[in-house]
Amino acid sequence: MSLASSHVAIRFHPPSYDIRVENVPIPEIIHPDDAIVKIHFSGLCGSDLHVYRGHEAVDRIHTCGHEFVGHVVKLGSSFSVHSQRLPALYANLKIGDKVVCPFTTSCGECRVCRSGFTCRCIQNKLFGSPALEGAQAQYVRVPNAGGTLFNLSDPETWPLSTPKQVSDSSLLLLADILPTGIFAAIQALSHPKVSPILTATPWPLHDQTFSDTPGLFPKENLPTFAIIGLGPVGVCATISLLDQLGKRQLPSGFRIVAVDPIKSRRNKMRSIYCKVCDPEVRSCEIFEIQSIEEAKETVRTWTSGVGCSAVLEVVGNNSALTLAYELVQPFGTISSVGVHGERPFPLTGGQLYDKNVSFDFGRCPVRSLFPMAFDLLIKRQDIFGGVGDESGLIDRIVGFDEAVEMYAAFDKGEVGKIVFDPWKKT
Amino acid sequence: MSLASSHVAIRFHPPSYDIRVENVPIPEIIHPDDAIVKIHFSGLCGSDLHVYRGHEAVDRIHTCGHEFVGHVVKLGSSFSVHSQRLPALYANLKIGDKVVCPFTTSCGECRVCRSGFTCRCIQNKLFGSPALEGAQAQYVRVPNAGGTLFNLSDPETWPLSTPKQVSDSSLLLLADILPTGIFAAIQALSHPKVSPILTATPWPLHDQTFSDTPGLFPKENLPTFAIIGLGPVGVCATISLLDQLGKRQLPSGFRIVAVDPIKSRRNKMRSIYCKVCDPEVRSCEIFEIQSIEEAKETVRTWTSGVGCSAVLEVVGNNSALTLAYELVQPFGTISSVGVHGERPFPLTGGQLYDKNVSFDFGRCPVRSLFPMAFDLLIKRQDIFGGVGDESGLIDRIVGFDEAVEMYAAFDKGEVGKIVFDPWKKT
Repeated sequence: MSLASSHVAIRFHPPSYDIRVENVPIPEIIHPDDAIVKIHFSGLCGSDLHVYRGHEAVDRIHTCGHEFVGHVVKLGSSFSVHSQRLPALYANLKIGDKVVCPFTTSCGECRVCRSGFTCRCIQNKLFGSPALEGAQAQYVRVPNAGGTLFNLSDPETWPLSTPKQVSDSSLLLLADILPTGIFAAIQALSHPKVSPILTATPWPLHDQTFSDTPGLFPKENLPTFAIIGLGPVGVCATISLLDQLGKRQLPSGFRIVAVDPIKSRRNKMRSIYCKVCDPEVRSCEIFEIQSIEEAKETVRTWTSGVGCSAVLEVVGNNSALTLAYELVQPFGTISSVGVHGERPFPLTGGQLYDKNVSFDFGRCPVRSLFPMAFDLLIKRQDIFGGVGDESGLIDRIVGFDEAVEMYAAFDKGEVGKIVFDPWKKT
Repeated sequence: MSLASSHVAIRFHPPSYDIRVENVPIPEIIHPDDAIVKIHFSGLCGSDLHVYRGHEAVDRIHTCGHEFVGHVVKLGSSFSVHSQRLPALYANLKIGDKVVCPFTTSCGECRVCRSGFTCRCIQNKLFGSPALEGAQAQYVRVPNAGGTLFNLSDPETWPLSTPKQVSDSSLLLLADILPTGIFAAIQALSHPKVSPILTATPWPLHDQTFSDTPGLFPKENLPTFAIIGLGPVGVCATISLLDQLGKRQLPSGFRIVAVDPIKSRRNKMRSIYCKVCDPEVRSCEIFEIQSIEEAKETVRTWTSGVGCSAVLEVVGNNSALTLAYELVQPFGTISSVGVHGERPFPLTGGQLYDKNVSFDFGRCPVRSLFPMAFDLLIKRQDIFGGVGDESGLIDRIVGFDEAVEMYAAFDKGEVGKIVFDPWKKT
């Protein structure tokens, strides 16, 4: 298949606040493991703003964006039938396949990838950075395409394929924010310090130290969680936490407080909660959406001052980390998926020791979470599928002609999640 | 039973370096949940030096020490047959029972205790601090005795009772250092980020993202661990890690590097390793004892620069935390049982995000770990049972007449683990 020689892309020009829509050469295969993807939709994400605002000292012009859904138009020689490459990763991807892509590349072959930690692949590159041209464009080159792309057309890779009722724009949420929200929830719920309260078995679990004591986990001692930050990722984390806890059918129920200082975000979360709360589990589910000071008081009251079993930190600054420490119980865990900068850490080793706190930091291994994220995307099309709904996650779908304006409006918090259609004509 | 009115105790006088052996009144029952224990042996621990050196700004004269083994001589009214107290905790303890005690008290009834996190009981007190008189004495008062003491005489609580071959002085190691070492190892091995390499199942474990890839966990990709600090707790952590990994019978084996800058500690660890290495598992076990720079190079070579699956930090200062960060792989975990002070944390949120690091901080819930620690104590009497052996953990058993001299020598690193026999006449 032959392509035109140039395409349209949204490009960042250093040092800051300079976004231009430009014609640039269409990316080419430069390594046998590469794929070229024609983009259906690409997203504007909160972390694009780090570069836009000049916070990351980027000194190279590059194409922005790290969320996209599209289809494969070219493949490197590793994907040919004569290739000696690993079959599962490199034999199943074909020209024309519909794909969704994590915000980072992953080879699928290194020690780190094989453990499932794909976002820290030893070759990982972040789309829309000086290291790799981004996806706010008509075409994008995907390095290590076999280990990176999630193939929605291959019935072997994904037996359900893409159900008809799943909207194309919602697939974009699989690239970053939905799996990152799920990641925040999984890290919290799978931590060994949270297991005792979920399983009514005292740590270290195989032991029965106090288990013959009556009232081991009394009804008033409910698993209690806080989510700090109700931007798009925080909303996804909340939906995922409710979903995962709901599936566990805890006999005593659970309690969640979702925290954000911004009223409009709390209102959005309320609209969404009205849809996701399951009448069957709601009877044993206590859910509050509050400001910071309200949440501190709520956790104090709920837990008699002890604190939350786990806190999900979805902001990425020192105020959020400090609040998480304040809300978490002794032997609690903090799942931190916010992108943190180089400022001094706001807690001392002494504070962490004194409360036996656990922390899980870092970015989501999106590639490994795709199947789980896709399940939730299908289940919650009422939230993820719409555009511009009061209880939807995507605010608007726009063409590139609105790119400059949308970056500025998104930077000022005047619009929600923006999706670009790179083929839209005005 | 009537006791004499005074007993001998080792007392700390503020502000620093002032230890005196004094006659003071024997402690009395002051709460129905109290027990009075007559002490057989009490230990001198590295953390006693924090107070001794004046680092903790203690302004009250108090009896030192938080490790002891002894027998019950008095019980509060909660333990009587007419009491309404919880049977398991308060009915099984009797006058004359032999007991060993964690370094902190625990009620056994609060939300935190019932989850197994006994050292952060909402009523917890540390022995040998201004909050609670210590155990370097002939008698000690134990608050919340039902939830705190581990009863070695009760066949219901502990079916094995104390086997004859277990030395009395070695029981003292159950109060702090042996369970703390086990705690460091358990936190590392039970972390969800370490599970993939131990089970050859990619994270998030229930998923099979890359599992049909041949050579998922190749033989050269061994589970790799580092232990930082080979003082008595570090030695216990190493023994426990070897023991726990040995039991798993990993088909591919594992690698451990144990790190300490002090040569005498490395030599001690070598003598001990000669005893604990199991010929049956040794064939698949790679174990090195090295200085800091050697260990960095070893981990680089072993893992092609990726890093350790988990690092056990058993020191409690910023150099150790920084080294742990350097040695750990992306998506690795750091199990930190060192006692940290109030200095600024040596890592930024950005560094933690960039490597997807997990941390578990804090003190050991000794009460919950007693059964596991007792098992290991019995199994490894060759290490724990002796006194003054090259490969033993206890250096000397002395009377109180040597207390002042022993504190000074221990402070200077001139002696190893010291145990006091409060009844020894010179």
